Amino acid sequence: MTRWPLLNLTAGPVETSERTLRDLARPVLHFRDPAFVAIFERTHGLLRQVYRTDHDVVIMQGEAVLGLEAAAASLIAPGDRVLNLVSGVFGKWYEGYVHAYGGEVVEVAVPYDEAIDPEDVRAALRRNPDVKFLSVVHCETPSGTRNPVREIGAVAREHGVLTIVDTVSGLAGEDVIPEAWGIDVAVAGPQKFLAAPPGLSLMAISPAAWAAMERRERPLRGSYLSLLDWKESWLDRRTFPYTPSVSDIYALESALSQLLEEGVERSIARHAAIARACRAGIRAMGLRLWPAREAVAANCATAVRLPDGITDAQLIAHLRERYGVAISGGEGDLAGKLFRLGHMGRAAQPTSLAAGLALLGRALEDLGQPVDLGTGVAAAMAEMAGWDHAAASYPTARAAELAGVKAGAG
Amino acid sequence: MTRWPLLNLTAGPVETSERTLRDLARPVLHFRDPAFVAIFERTHGLLRQVYRTDHDVVIMQGEAVLGLEAAAASLIAPGDRVLNLVSGVFGKWYEGYVHAYGGEVVEVAVPYDEAIDPEDVRAALRRNPDVKFLSVVHCETPSGTRNPVREIGAVAREHGVLTIVDTVSGLAGEDVIPEAWGIDVAVAGPQKFLAAPPGLSLMAISPAAWAAMERRERPLRGSYLSLLDWKESWLDRRTFPYTPSVSDIYALESALSQLLEEGVERSIARHAAIARACRAGIRAMGLRLWPAREAVAANCATAVRLPDGITDAQLIAHLRERYGVAISGGEGDLAGKLFRLGHMGRAAQPTSLAAGLALLGRALEDLGQPVDLGTGVAAAMAEMAGWDHAAASYPTARAAELAGVKAGAG
Amino acid sequence: MTRWPLLNLTAGPVETSERTLRDLARPVLHFRDPAFVAIFERTHGLLRQVYRTDHDVVIMQGEAVLGLEAAAASLIAPGDRVLNLVSGVFGKWYEGYVHAYGGEVVEVAVPYDEAIDPEDVRAALRRNPDVKFLSVVHCETPSGTRNPVREIGAVAREHGVLTIVDTVSGLAGEDVIPEAWGIDVAVAGPQKFLAAPPGLSLMAISPAAWAAMERRERPLRGSYLSLLDWKESWLDRRTFPYTPSVSDIYALESALSQLLEEGVERSIARHAAIARACRAGIRAMGLRLWPAREAVAANCATAVRLPDGITDAQLIAHLRERYGVAISGGEGDLAGKLFRLGHMGRAAQPTSLAAGLALLGRALEDLGQPVDLGTGVAAAMAEMAGWDHAAASYPTARAAELAGVKAGAG
Amino acid sequence: MTRWPLLNLTAGPVETSERTLRDLARPVLHFRDPAFVAIFERTHGLLRQVYRTDHDVVIMQGEAVLGLEAAAASLIAPGDRVLNLVSGVFGKWYEGYVHAYGGEVVEVAVPYDEAIDPEDVRAALRRNPDVKFLSVVHCETPSGTRNPVREIGAVAREHGVLTIVDTVSGLAGEDVIPEAWGIDVAVAGPQKFLAAPPGLSLMAISPAAWAAMERRERPLRGSYLSLLDWKESWLDRRTFPYTPSVSDIYALESALSQLLEEGVERSIARHAAIARACRAGIRAMGLRLWPAREAVAANCATAVRLPDGITDAQLIAHLRERYGVAISGGEGDLAGKLFRLGHMGRAAQPTSLAAGLALLGRALEDLGQPVDLGTGVAAAMAEMAGWDHAAASYPTARAAELAGVKAGAG
Repeated sequence: MTRWPLLNLTAGPVETSERTLRDLARPVLHFRDPAFVAIFERTHGLLRQVYRTDHDVVIMQGEAVLGLEAAAASLIAPGDRVLNLVSGVFGKWYEGYVHAYGGEVVEVAVPYDEAIDPEDVRAALRRNPDVKFLSVVHCETPSGTRNPVREIGAVAREHGVLTIVDTVSGLAGEDVIPEAWGIDVAVAGPQKFLAAPPGLSLMAISPAAWAAMERRERPLRGSYLSLLDWKESWLDRRTFPYTPSVSDIYALESALSQLLEEGVERSIARHAAIARACRAGIRAMGLRLWPAREAVAANCATAVRLPDGITDAQLIAHLRERYGVAISGGEGDLAGKLFRLGHMGRAAQPTSLAAGLALLGRALEDLGQPVDLGTGVAAAMAEMAGWDHAAASYPTARAAELAGVKAGAG
Repeated sequence: MTRWPLLNLTAGPVETSERTLRDLARPVLHFRDPAFVAIFERTHGLLRQVYRTDHDVVIMQGEAVLGLEAAAASLIAPGDRVLNLVSGVFGKWYEGYVHAYGGEVVEVAVPYDEAIDPEDVRAALRRNPDVKFLSVVHCETPSGTRNPVREIGAVAREHGVLTIVDTVSGLAGEDVIPEAWGIDVAVAGPQKFLAAPPGLSLMAISPAAWAAMERRERPLRGSYLSLLDWKESWLDRRTFPYTPSVSDIYALESALSQLLEEGVERSIARHAAIARACRAGIRAMGLRLWPAREAVAANCATAVRLPDGITDAQLIAHLRERYGVAISGGEGDLAGKLFRLGHMGRAAQPTSLAAGLALLGRALEDLGQPVDLGTGVAAAMAEMAGWDHAAASYPTARAAELAGVKAGAG
Repeated sequence: MTRWPLLNLTAGPVETSERTLRDLARPVLHFRDPAFVAIFERTHGLLRQVYRTDHDVVIMQGEAVLGLEAAAASLIAPGDRVLNLVSGVFGKWYEGYVHAYGGEVVEVAVPYDEAIDPEDVRAALRRNPDVKFLSVVHCETPSGTRNPVREIGAVAREHGVLTIVDTVSGLAGEDVIPEAWGIDVAVAGPQKFLAAPPGLSLMAISPAAWAAMERRERPLRGSYLSLLDWKESWLDRRTFPYTPSVSDIYALESALSQLLEEGVERSIARHAAIARACRAGIRAMGLRLWPAREAVAANCATAVRLPDGITDAQLIAHLRERYGVAISGGEGDLAGKLFRLGHMGRAAQPTSLAAGLALLGRALEDLGQPVDLGTGVAAAMAEMAGWDHAAASYPTARAAELAGVKAGAG
Repeated sequence: MTRWPLLNLTAGPVETSERTLRDLARPVLHFRDPAFVAIFERTHGLLRQVYRTDHDVVIMQGEAVLGLEAAAASLIAPGDRVLNLVSGVFGKWYEGYVHAYGGEVVEVAVPYDEAIDPEDVRAALRRNPDVKFLSVVHCETPSGTRNPVREIGAVAREHGVLTIVDTVSGLAGEDVIPEAWGIDVAVAGPQKFLAAPPGLSLMAISPAAWAAMERRERPLRGSYLSLLDWKESWLDRRTFPYTPSVSDIYALESALSQLLEEGVERSIARHAAIARACRAGIRAMGLRLWPAREAVAANCATAVRLPDGITDAQLIAHLRERYGVAISGGEGDLAGKLFRLGHMGRAAQPTSLAAGLALLGRALEDLGQPVDLGTGVAAAMAEMAGWDHAAASYPTARAAELAGVKAGAG
């Protein structure tokens, strides 16, 4: 039997808290049972608070790619032009959905260690005034980079373009506020910053997006991919279009509650501080970060260029087998170029960070890649001064300042 | 706060065993972790054993309607003719999928308290030699009835028609063997006889069905609805097309293991015996069963015609609020006509049956519908002689005989 | 492997709620961790509320016999005279502790199907003015009988005698209020009406009892049996004399919380109503209750005289193996004379009662002891009219009246 | 609400595995239920394997101090002379039990940073030929030191003296084999190396010890402190003297199973290797170990002298509140002199070690005690080369050699 890891420092699904697992294990109720309906109702309310939005939220019953495809399937009609922004693997992937549902792609792309420039978006929308939708990935987990969604959203709004934002590795770990940022369809996943099991799509939908779905010549109804089904059942009548994933909802309710006990802003600041410390440690070890510059580095995972002479498969297997630490490698076009230390949810703590960096050093040395281990951990821990676990992990003023987070900032 | 029920006697999702809940609550692994890949592999193997099939099995990551829609989306091309058999709510519902994917429906229908006659299928196929697919619901949970899928499958095979069988409330509680019965796409759900949480579609796909999907002019790939994605990732390369529902897979592995410890045939016999005893109790109480005759009554749930003078909403709310017993009402066209006692999984035991019948009697009396309570429970218990919990709930010879189950029968 | 039962209808340890099991499974904290100290503090507070007392409470770290022995070991000095009241197996057993710690026993005894008469206590105390302590069992679980502890306590107080009351099967299921009833040392267990796992002694100690312990020539300190150790560590300084049973405390905190959400009075009324209904069912089946009269029957378990021709071992094994129902037999002198249906905690619900009576009938018939099964369940269910699960199982006015419980009655 | 710690690096109770918590949460069975009896039987067998003994084992139902007191209460008669070896807080504490049960203490003592010299034991026994019992603590958790129990046992055997060995922080983490080492009564606890919840005493009893208990003028029976009660109920007749702690037994069964899956020798080697690496890290940080020399340092916890200028309370509170790391301070006479990093069970892994040392450094710096953090973690990780998590954490040849453990050594 394969031994389980001791530490899940992958780019997600991430470790949940024990409390989430206990709540996940509540007995299975029928979905029409009043106790389940009350839990679903409450979960909806919690999700809106975490999204800090007055938009409708929808919980689709499949992991985030379902929500992403559903947005395309529900909005895009044959011939619609879509500005697809590509700064990484997932950005490029969305093109497939646009094509599948008959849309035409206009692309703005940058290298995968960079971020989209809002001015390039503006220019593209000027050149293509018939673009109806814009799709963008908030954080590219595969490369640990972040796009300036707030500024991009503002540009889209100026041009009357509806936006579809993949904030799967954004919600609760990066600043994101649907209304204020001009986001019409946001898609998040429970298995990243929220630290719940995968299997759901957490969406926020603007009135304009609903209107666009309903206005389509053949609105999408009666399908697992239909957003309108959820509007017309749960949102309008508190019924379900089909059997929801009862246990996954239990876990989501629990994870959202815990997140709100900590506070959305504090959670963002916590993740930002750990990510910054991780990068400091990596640099001090003499390794090279993947993101081209600090400003584009995301809070979800730290991507590191592979040193010469080892493969990501080797490093991942070695850390996992010998020390019980699970990390992630490169995906798609990035395979073989980098490895990643995830730091979302429970992993976004000084303890996990120290363990991850120490064993990473140990493993690299085993594999003939000696690094300055002591300096690495020391640099990371230097960033942790002022950490405050007792205050719900809220980094004190200094850390919050470092993280550049302003509570409630629009 | 709404109090939880003490007994879930609904038509599903049903109560799981405590062991399933504990296994559900294992820590969340990344889906590429070798420990998770091993669990998924093992779960696949267990599912094939429960299906008693050499066909490929596929576990789609959404509740059974996803699998049902995926079958239509993956197989049916515009203009394809589909013989849709309608003996209940779900049979009628499938018509929507056929239309959505461009198919044309040929219908054979019977009243919702009856079962499809295989001879009517034969006649329909003779009249419509260009039919490519046949869709049928094995057991209509909303009306507690069962179609003779074995005989229908044989007829379809004679005519070279591919079959799509909704055995959501069939697998593990009714006899069903894909190859032997000529089933090309079978769709089951974990939340019924298997007593796992909802959120997955458990499918068995014949080589002919795969060939048909691949042969289509535009095979469906790159979608949440694509079966081929699973073939080309998991079945061919042991990778995943997207993040699977890690925790739900844990629970499924556990539930399938427990089912196989009992034995598929024993599970079927157990459910058949409890269903038979439930009907005996209902009749003895002076109530009328919904199914027109004993031969069409299914093992999943006992549907009972509503006595005059009460509504199903009243009865359900009363039982749930006053005695903590959750049962089901009518769905769709059947709303207001019947109520249902489910007896799947953990509920298929003499203890739950006795409790359900006793409190049903209590509730009917409260609502001014006096029934012969004592006689009802006594009649049900009379059927339980020979029950053998210690032998994994295997009913002894007499019960097996009553249930008409022959172990391993093709 | 032995299959687990479906229903635990024994005389305790009883089934817990699923919530208690989930709370039990919280990670193990060091007992000096501030989070554990907070839980222990809270648990203490909850226990006082459940005891409805201002006396000190002490949670000893071993099942209730530890508390019972600790009372003797801490109070009784060589030569002390103790009036030991014997109406059952546990009453007789206490004599052993009195002797072990050097006391002399004065006994008042009645047959094991009867209760102690307070007037006999008064007479005995008059005859033995040098008696210092009185020991009595509130409810004799082995025979399902109850002593009039309130009246006995009043008599003891008149004579200045300190009382040791075994309310293991009393607290939360029978009325008992330490101050008002003149109880100096009360000992309860979590595994009975509270429905938590066994392993703790839940005690309430009067100031007079503390004074007596401290006044002894050689007060008992530095021992697992010492009550003073707990006073001088936890009560006085919030430290622990040794490592407490961390997980068992988690479960107790949870069970006490749930009990208080229901309400102590409602819990007593619920148990009284189910016990009454169980006796009604047993009588209607043509079986004979063990307690000599209704007034002495306890709420914890219904003891039934064994019909001729079967043994308790046979009946217990048959019900457990064939139907998955666990019940209890006779203990000590009562072995072979009776069997018992427990109805504490989760089992004190109409669902469990109906299941228990129905399968008992089934089993008796299997064993050649035909009973009137239908009439039995019907009689029990007749008593359940007015049950109100939604209101935290609070029986409505009629049931409360039947149960003779007055909220907060002194 | 107090936030829970992220890492329990105390000296015990330690963190359990998640699997142990899930097994702990199995439904509560009555202790006479055949399923529970089978679990208890199996747990007994597992405990004998972990003790690597053919002696009887006894599981008393209270944390280890119960077993320690029970040994004294069951063996020592008034006037018996007991050689009590004192090298720490717990050694000194045992004197209290000897006195309480009427024994006379002969003491051999060393400073609390040292270990008992077997030659001093020999000399003491020569001087005191009437000594009947010898009591010794295998590992003094409060000071992180170890006594040479094997050699002491040999000396005791030469003199025909029965030995009582407190191996609470020994079993499964240090070499200890009852027969081979001349141990008559061994007492261990589940909450240390076995990583189960506290609440039980795990004992191994030699035939000579049983004989001594039975030979006493008034053998101890009918008490929570009686070992003979367990012999005469469980060992002789597979019954219980009273209600066992059902849930704690579930957890113990699980923890013992996991330990045996790893292997007793591998567990010892793992703990030895982590302890050695921890000491290397502490020294490299410029801190001073408490044990006088490497040879007396135990595997359970690393005790470190407090630097001037801070208190243990300060350091413990700071690490706990600011970084979520729980460690231990000094106990009894050692309070204020040292702090301790525990590394038992789940904490005996490179990940926890790295996290513990890194945050310890962080905390000391916060408190104005700068240490060489980088060098500390680097030194500890240097010792981890060759770690092999996949092989059940078995350190490879080099680590085993470093640890000085020989598999199966008598």
